[in-house]
Amino acid sequence: MARIAVDMDEVMADALGEHIHRYNKAFGTQIERAHLHGKHLKEVIPAEHHRASHEIVHCEDFFAKLKVMDGAQEALEAMSKEHEIYIVTAAMEVPASLAPKYVWLQEHFPFISSMNYVFCGNKHVVQADYLIDDNARHFKLFGGEGILFDAPHNKKVTGYKRVHNWHEAKALFCTSESEQKQACLT
Amino acid sequence: MARIAVDMDEVMADALGEHIHRYNKAFGTQIERAHLHGKHLKEVIPAEHHRASHEIVHCEDFFAKLKVMDGAQEALEAMSKEHEIYIVTAAMEVPASLAPKYVWLQEHFPFISSMNYVFCGNKHVVQADYLIDDNARHFKLFGGEGILFDAPHNKKVTGYKRVHNWHEAKALFCTSESEQKQACLT
Repeated sequence: MARIAVDMDEVMADALGEHIHRYNKAFGTQIERAHLHGKHLKEVIPAEHHRASHEIVHCEDFFAKLKVMDGAQEALEAMSKEHEIYIVTAAMEVPASLAPKYVWLQEHFPFISSMNYVFCGNKHVVQADYLIDDNARHFKLFGGEGILFDAPHNKKVTGYKRVHNWHEAKALFCTSESEQKQACLT
Repeated sequence: MARIAVDMDEVMADALGEHIHRYNKAFGTQIERAHLHGKHLKEVIPAEHHRASHEIVHCEDFFAKLKVMDGAQEALEAMSKEHEIYIVTAAMEVPASLAPKYVWLQEHFPFISSMNYVFCGNKHVVQADYLIDDNARHFKLFGGEGILFDAPHNKKVTGYKRVHNWHEAKALFCTSESEQKQACLT
């Protein structure tokens, strides 16, 4: 059993999808995830839109309605049976997200206790064996192993184990049924 | 330099004082801190008031206006010059406290970065050398040393180093001026 810290935005919750959707709606643009290869949204929009784009994320209702990332619920439910899962999110960067994030986690991930939520700034203060995150900057001072969750902005980041989706994350951390059978036979 | 995790309620913020004040106002009682020697407020009020007393703390505005504990600002400002200070609060027990706690910290402790706030459930997930807390239950699985901050409910708790106020906490963690002078002479 390992202790696995899991980031929220871009890992459990599709914050980028919602950000792009709201930005396109506000400015009549047609930006897609595929346009952001190796870049943050901020890097592909005009400088005069930076403030408005920033305000989208700081809206009270932004975090409340985010879609769950494909396969996150099933994978985390399976992983939580074998490991100790902590949700570790840099919520202090957007204080308006604190309450909505709590409600969102309770709604979509009821099998993870709120005692295992960590709303913080610096993530390296959390003691865990692994940190699944789309931002490699959190790995630098972290004491465990960083697992990079694939996202448009991190396509060019190297030096860390990368999982492309929750199917891969689950495979990395869960004893598969076939392995269990094998273990019974030997 | 050590990393010191510091609890909020009953350590930085006088939550008990406000709880007693609101309870007395609601029920016309005259409970004082001194009546709680070795006990929580819950243990000295009638069972039929437990729910109302619980609701006092879960009020949206409860955490916003708490008084700062005597000497906390001066001591933590001095300590933060020699150590890495993290505010670690079990905010998930009262989700309505998340946003007010953030605002309160910004207002009263502006010298501590919000990157050093940790709003969590289980505190033992935080990696620090010390945890200053009034609840000894947080020390059990904590990897560092627990420092018990004196409070009415913990008067009978033994087995931990106890500080009775912020003056003592500061003395424990700050190199005093006289010691600095001594160091220069030797």
